[in-house]
Amino acid sequence: MLPDPIKKFVDVFSQLPSIGPRQATRLAFFVSNSGKTKIKEISDAVSGLAHLTACAQCFRTQIGQGRLCSVCADPTRNKKLIAIVEKETDLLSIEKTKKFNGWYMLIGELHRNGELEPEQKLRLASLKSFIQKELSGPSAGSGQAKAEEIILATNPTVYGDLNAATLKKELEGFAEKITRLGRGIPTGGEIEFADEETLGSALERRN
Amino acid sequence: MLPDPIKKFVDVFSQLPSIGPRQATRLAFFVSNSGKTKIKEISDAVSGLAHLTACAQCFRTQIGQGRLCSVCADPTRNKKLIAIVEKETDLLSIEKTKKFNGWYMLIGELHRNGELEPEQKLRLASLKSFIQKELSGPSAGSGQAKAEEIILATNPTVYGDLNAATLKKELEGFAEKITRLGRGIPTGGEIEFADEETLGSALERRN
Repeated sequence: MLPDPIKKFVDVFSQLPSIGPRQATRLAFFVSNSGKTKIKEISDAVSGLAHLTACAQCFRTQIGQGRLCSVCADPTRNKKLIAIVEKETDLLSIEKTKKFNGWYMLIGELHRNGELEPEQKLRLASLKSFIQKELSGPSAGSGQAKAEEIILATNPTVYGDLNAATLKKELEGFAEKITRLGRGIPTGGEIEFADEETLGSALERRN
Repeated sequence: MLPDPIKKFVDVFSQLPSIGPRQATRLAFFVSNSGKTKIKEISDAVSGLAHLTACAQCFRTQIGQGRLCSVCADPTRNKKLIAIVEKETDLLSIEKTKKFNGWYMLIGELHRNGELEPEQKLRLASLKSFIQKELSGPSAGSGQAKAEEIILATNPTVYGDLNAATLKKELEGFAEKITRLGRGIPTGGEIEFADEETLGSALERRN
């Protein structure tokens, strides 16, 4: 019933995260009705992404092969303070606070079953090898080189907690401290409307 | 902060309907991490839409220039029964019922202010000229040729009603009857949970 190019578009786009077949179908007709110039602009915007590569150290997306991203290449960043994030957008949100002076490790979205993908294991191995090679200063002595702190910046959800536990097990011994982001009532929030979980955390972590 | 190709992608995709800047950003990183083959597949799926054209009669999307779509070319369809729909997806939903034997006029999404775009006025003019040329059989006599029925198949919402009123004014005199889709309690629905508006309509239109 649907013309082939529409079908193809719907197939491809409904595999993307948070786009279902309905939205994909609506998009297909919208785009096909928007004219050849617009169609080319959209298709170019997609193919432009092929020029991106991952930073050799933190694996975030950047332009140019094999180089370090702006954060990893910045000599003023504290190399002993590492935040592990799941998504680029998490990384960007943390950068926007301007309160973090360490560097990141982009682990990729973690499975809900708590298992790590081969690529994610490689990234952790790369992090461990960085810690051993780059952070084994005189203070480390003869023992295992350690980061000062690894922040497991996964979401404060059941799955985020599970994944943080998995990562913590993997990284045990590679940092003086392994921490998570503080949780509590969001700024501007009201105690009356905070859910029990959040209010409980806020009580436990009062300061 | 974002690499240029990501920025470009976010700009272009957040202009599409029901994709906001946040979803566009997430999509950009997802696609850029999905590998060159996948990126090409997605960009090809978009550019494939450039091969589509509009049916010369009902304006729905189809393959091939200047020809009629399968519905308009079907001689068993009643040419005197016309459903005006806003979107291709509305048309497809109606076709799926297999209860409609007329043809369609795709008017495009109507503005919330009840005004018609120039393109929409052209489509209405094309519909009127079709009625005058094709439906002026001997039964029409010397007067205005008329369709048997025009169904204004806009959504049963405040805006859908407003738009139906606009279309009705435009098409007055071009059909014996101008109707809308019946409204009432959806099949499988429960009276107890129907909203007042729906239940009211169901009472008024009981049959």
